[in-house]
Amino acid sequence: MRPSQAPVLTLEVTHRDPETSARCAVMTTRAGPVDTPVFMPVATQATVKSLTRAELLQLDVGLLLCNAYHLYLRPGADVVERAGGVHGFMNWQGPTLSDSGGYQVFSLEALREISDEGVRFRSHVDGAELFLSPEQAIVMQQQIGADIIMSFDQPVAYPADEAAAADAAERTHRWAEAGRRAFRPETGQALFGIVQGGFSAALRRRTAARLADLDFEGYAVGGLSVGEPMELMLDMAEVALSELPPDRPRYLMGVGMPEDLIDAVALGFDMFDCVLPTRLGRNGCAFTRRGRINLKNAEFADDFGPLDPECDCQACRDHTRAYVRHLFKANEILAKRLLTYHNLSLYFWLMREMRQAIAAGEFSAFAVHWQPRLAGLSPGADAG
Amino acid sequence: MRPSQAPVLTLEVTHRDPETSARCAVMTTRAGPVDTPVFMPVATQATVKSLTRAELLQLDVGLLLCNAYHLYLRPGADVVERAGGVHGFMNWQGPTLSDSGGYQVFSLEALREISDEGVRFRSHVDGAELFLSPEQAIVMQQQIGADIIMSFDQPVAYPADEAAAADAAERTHRWAEAGRRAFRPETGQALFGIVQGGFSAALRRRTAARLADLDFEGYAVGGLSVGEPMELMLDMAEVALSELPPDRPRYLMGVGMPEDLIDAVALGFDMFDCVLPTRLGRNGCAFTRRGRINLKNAEFADDFGPLDPECDCQACRDHTRAYVRHLFKANEILAKRLLTYHNLSLYFWLMREMRQAIAAGEFSAFAVHWQPRLAGLSPGADAG
Repeated sequence: MRPSQAPVLTLEVTHRDPETSARCAVMTTRAGPVDTPVFMPVATQATVKSLTRAELLQLDVGLLLCNAYHLYLRPGADVVERAGGVHGFMNWQGPTLSDSGGYQVFSLEALREISDEGVRFRSHVDGAELFLSPEQAIVMQQQIGADIIMSFDQPVAYPADEAAAADAAERTHRWAEAGRRAFRPETGQALFGIVQGGFSAALRRRTAARLADLDFEGYAVGGLSVGEPMELMLDMAEVALSELPPDRPRYLMGVGMPEDLIDAVALGFDMFDCVLPTRLGRNGCAFTRRGRINLKNAEFADDFGPLDPECDCQACRDHTRAYVRHLFKANEILAKRLLTYHNLSLYFWLMREMRQAIAAGEFSAFAVHWQPRLAGLSPGADAG
Repeated sequence: MRPSQAPVLTLEVTHRDPETSARCAVMTTRAGPVDTPVFMPVATQATVKSLTRAELLQLDVGLLLCNAYHLYLRPGADVVERAGGVHGFMNWQGPTLSDSGGYQVFSLEALREISDEGVRFRSHVDGAELFLSPEQAIVMQQQIGADIIMSFDQPVAYPADEAAAADAAERTHRWAEAGRRAFRPETGQALFGIVQGGFSAALRRRTAARLADLDFEGYAVGGLSVGEPMELMLDMAEVALSELPPDRPRYLMGVGMPEDLIDAVALGFDMFDCVLPTRLGRNGCAFTRRGRINLKNAEFADDFGPLDPECDCQACRDHTRAYVRHLFKANEILAKRLLTYHNLSLYFWLMREMRQAIAAGEFSAFAVHWQPRLAGLSPGADAG
């Protein structure tokens, strides 16, 4: 974590799938190496909701995502910095990535005013009026201290007016340039750019090509998985990726369901994050190797089998569906914990299996076997 | 857990304190032995709120309390029975005790009608009108299958009218007799009687003496720690205890704070339960060896020290006060988990230390040293 002269981030591709664009690599950050493809669990407020660091270590988390915008509002970037950055604050020594907050400012909070200089908005915590510039988004992330930090960007909603999407993409590009200039590489942190461009292939392609010229340590494709059809999402992701340098990590933001991750890995993406396994878990949905089931359903009241009969995680080993259903009906915290843990364990199992399948040259066969099962579409699936 | 001809519950007193009535014993239930004095964490809905069984094992829980009334309402005694009783339902093989629900029926829910035959009331889960007799309270607890079960009783509020307290004590006695007759000892479960009697020493004494004649496997003193002064609580507990057989376990229900447990152990009680370490923990209160602190307070925003500097539990080893405060301010589940775990770890530490002090003949010195510190009354205490 000390300032260093070495490259702040390297990517060594170790295996390429012969039939798809899937690849395995070792991405080395200042906090250590990460095997890719990697799924990042979401620790928005410096906590993967309901889990401890000991459990994240058990789950073999490779790269942890936190949200700089949320931490900037509460407890404040200064508090996190005094704690030794997000590593010290969370007591998490493994590699971390912070999202800049563009998505939150534009989609979750009351937007006040947007200009090329930045965004004026109200804090959802205390209502204070705040201003965030693309430069400040970088300074604040460097204070918070994740190992990979993200440019400040402007996503658009789906469906997006093409002129509005072009305008947002243009602003995102200028903000990427401004952030690049404000970034201090001597901390050893890496800065990623974000491709926007709405739902136009031509705009996505043009935007990605221009962004690649700015020579970021890695590239993300953002503004997808916001309600558009899956086919369109994959098309946009693919066309953007085709313009990004293959020697840099490529991150598909906000994706996705297990079956979507298989598609995205096949395209050649290396990094993913998604709130669904944790958020849906807190709402009673268990991801299983035979599709998703809702434990709140009455059919599980007398089901004394494990959550996912093919899983060996501690939540599945120790608890029955009937018990977890009872915990949900009684609104008990443990219910949320158990499904969060199990769902993430399934995601980490999937990523490990995909890496092994790529290394063994068997990724396509893996995808054909598991994709319908994970989606609950195979014969005998439990989907509920 | 099989039917047995052996005594369903034995108490072997191993040490007696020379200066107080404190004692150490091994209480043997059908599910195994329990070292006393023992504190029971409260698993009202078959879960110690926020914790897993693995954590209860780490905490070295000797005897777990669940609430038959809550489980009878949801998921239903039949579901718990089909799961193999509360042991199978929770996957908890250690000794368990179920409270009968008298306290819940009388204090938490809409009471409909009380008679010598039992209580008609509305379920807080679905509003259904239900009737619970003293016999049914036993049948239902035998289905739910805890190793120690409790008579159905009628507590009174503080302050209580003496005539009303006498009336409730009389009814509690008749219900104890009825429950004793309904109880089937061949399951190997043990049945405890409960002393009521409000806040009159004479009534408590008379009630306890009559109850002792019914030859229960153990005796509880109930209806205390409901708002009365601590001195009065201890007086009532002591006078009841003086009439109870010394060769049986004696359980002081609903007590208490760490400093109160020291007083109650000194009187000669063996068993305790209390929701405070878990409930207050979920609300931000950490019990420390220098008193209680509220982590929500602003003074902890920049406090990067452990929750309790004298504690070696995992919550204290892995997290700072500033981080836990942030989790509370952000309303994160992990905050509740960490303080629940830490507070219980302090309680189990206290019980272990008290047992060791009694065994070493040093209980009075232990009490003089720790009682003011745990209450936050010693010089340099952090109490907040």
